[in-house]
Amino acid sequence: MLTQFFQRYMTELDASMRHTVNSRPKFSSDFGVMLRYALGWVDEHDTPYNLPTGKRIRPILLLLSTEAAGGDWRKSLPSAVAVELLHNFSLIHDDIQDNSLTRHNRPTVWQVWGTANAINAGDALFTLAYCALEELASRDIEPQTIIKIWRIFNDTMLELTRGQHLDMSFEHQAIVTTDEYLSMIEGKSAALLAACAQIGALIASNDDELSAAYMEFGLNIGLAFQIHDDILGIWGDPDVTGKSAATDILSRKKSLPVLYGLNKSEKLMSIYQRQTFTANDVTEAVKTLDAVGARKYAQETETTFYNRALAALESANPLSESGRWLKQLVEALFERQH
Amino acid sequence: MLTQFFQRYMTELDASMRHTVNSRPKFSSDFGVMLRYALGWVDEHDTPYNLPTGKRIRPILLLLSTEAAGGDWRKSLPSAVAVELLHNFSLIHDDIQDNSLTRHNRPTVWQVWGTANAINAGDALFTLAYCALEELASRDIEPQTIIKIWRIFNDTMLELTRGQHLDMSFEHQAIVTTDEYLSMIEGKSAALLAACAQIGALIASNDDELSAAYMEFGLNIGLAFQIHDDILGIWGDPDVTGKSAATDILSRKKSLPVLYGLNKSEKLMSIYQRQTFTANDVTEAVKTLDAVGARKYAQETETTFYNRALAALESANPLSESGRWLKQLVEALFERQH
Repeated sequence: MLTQFFQRYMTELDASMRHTVNSRPKFSSDFGVMLRYALGWVDEHDTPYNLPTGKRIRPILLLLSTEAAGGDWRKSLPSAVAVELLHNFSLIHDDIQDNSLTRHNRPTVWQVWGTANAINAGDALFTLAYCALEELASRDIEPQTIIKIWRIFNDTMLELTRGQHLDMSFEHQAIVTTDEYLSMIEGKSAALLAACAQIGALIASNDDELSAAYMEFGLNIGLAFQIHDDILGIWGDPDVTGKSAATDILSRKKSLPVLYGLNKSEKLMSIYQRQTFTANDVTEAVKTLDAVGARKYAQETETTFYNRALAALESANPLSESGRWLKQLVEALFERQH
Repeated sequence: MLTQFFQRYMTELDASMRHTVNSRPKFSSDFGVMLRYALGWVDEHDTPYNLPTGKRIRPILLLLSTEAAGGDWRKSLPSAVAVELLHNFSLIHDDIQDNSLTRHNRPTVWQVWGTANAINAGDALFTLAYCALEELASRDIEPQTIIKIWRIFNDTMLELTRGQHLDMSFEHQAIVTTDEYLSMIEGKSAALLAACAQIGALIASNDDELSAAYMEFGLNIGLAFQIHDDILGIWGDPDVTGKSAATDILSRKKSLPVLYGLNKSEKLMSIYQRQTFTANDVTEAVKTLDAVGARKYAQETETTFYNRALAALESANPLSESGRWLKQLVEALFERQH
């Protein structure tokens, strides 16, 4: 039902994305292929490929926010393309930085073409996001508003790099506080969702106050969603998450519940200092997290952000039908295991 | 004399650059230090450092073009900051891609902080270039013109990534034509100089035709200058260039004269296929290049672009005093050994 509803965006969104990426006559095919591959359209030989593309959460949020704030979603298409390209750019660079070998069950861009090419392909996709945004000028949007959107986009990118920096620093940091962690995910995950909702509402209304409420909505959804993911990473049912049980413990990911636990329990700290983890260590770590209340803390924090998000949305008075879809989108995001 | 003239830009340019980079309260100092280091302001411990910064050719060209086209250079400052930050961003990523260990006699950013951090620092500096451009809005410039400049900036960035891609591809390509090479340097070096002259004139005049002439001027200067450098890399006097004789032969750089020679002479091709080069091989390679007319070809090509640049400038009718300085800047660029 939800997917069907969003389907009406998909054809035009996909066409606009392809237009932005492919209408570059000066780009040789061995350059363009890296971008098309990263976007899930082709295999490494540039052969079209029917990979189910990503969930496109960010552009959907943007387009739906436009409608909920009383605007025409087609007017927002260029910015929806921009946020999706920006997201994909960040994945290319993240995969190099995290040394990730696969994404969506395929080798990452740097695995196929090497680090040097992947850095450059990321830079190109980053630029194409800005190029997509340019197109707003052909959609009867005031230049002043376009500059405002551009500014939001710049600030969001700065937040992404700030969050990424914190995330990488945490690996070498003995003690990370939960506040530091929340600041990191605000930059790395929530800022882009905040921008999506804000830009969508701004294009619809050109109203700073209204779009600030949408921004608040997106930001808190982003925070809640990351914490939701953190909880699933430890307590999620492997059959539902598709990952092994307590996968984030095994990979020693410094997620919110883990950081809470490490700051509360010397036992957990000593487990985390072991060179390798046995299955028993993992079980013991999860038990300790439960005992110190890490799960409860994470759930309560998630709920706080979730409620803030809904309150912000409420205050924005979304149009009845699109507002309902927006709430359904949010519920679907969190429903994976609730 | 020339340096003295440009000195009047430097204080404000430097202050604006520092403002753009340093006025980010959310950036921790261990993040900001990488950007300040890359810009030559501090050492790796964030201690201020009196390194003579780069020559700032790009912002100077932009500001001088503004004046030559009849405008106030201060109005152009934000875009001058933007092009200099963009240039420095590209150096951070280039150094990773080329595996370069030092720049300006200091370890490169990735050498000090690792590849992952250097990619991210580059991304941040890239974004800050766009942030600098935003500031045009506070300089009494029409939003329409700002969007035009932003478009030029996007196109320039795409050209940079295209040129970089070609440059990296050449390493694995048995035969590279001189046309392919010229297309590469157009993207990698000349496009940014073209944008500098064009943006400067656009801010001064808001005249598309006039700024196109300046663009033509900058583009051809960029092409001529790269070829000039290629010639010095083989025939330059080590005492003047500060590099060892025939340094580009030793590093097997596929510069314009070398490509011309490889396409003309099987002897040179066979020298280039040797695993290692002896001093004798280098001498022989240079002799062969001279014999097949590679030096003459490169010099003539340089002259063609140089003359095109001056003709474009002539057609733009630069104001007498700034026009003279613009010509002197160009002459100074090429005077290193002429």
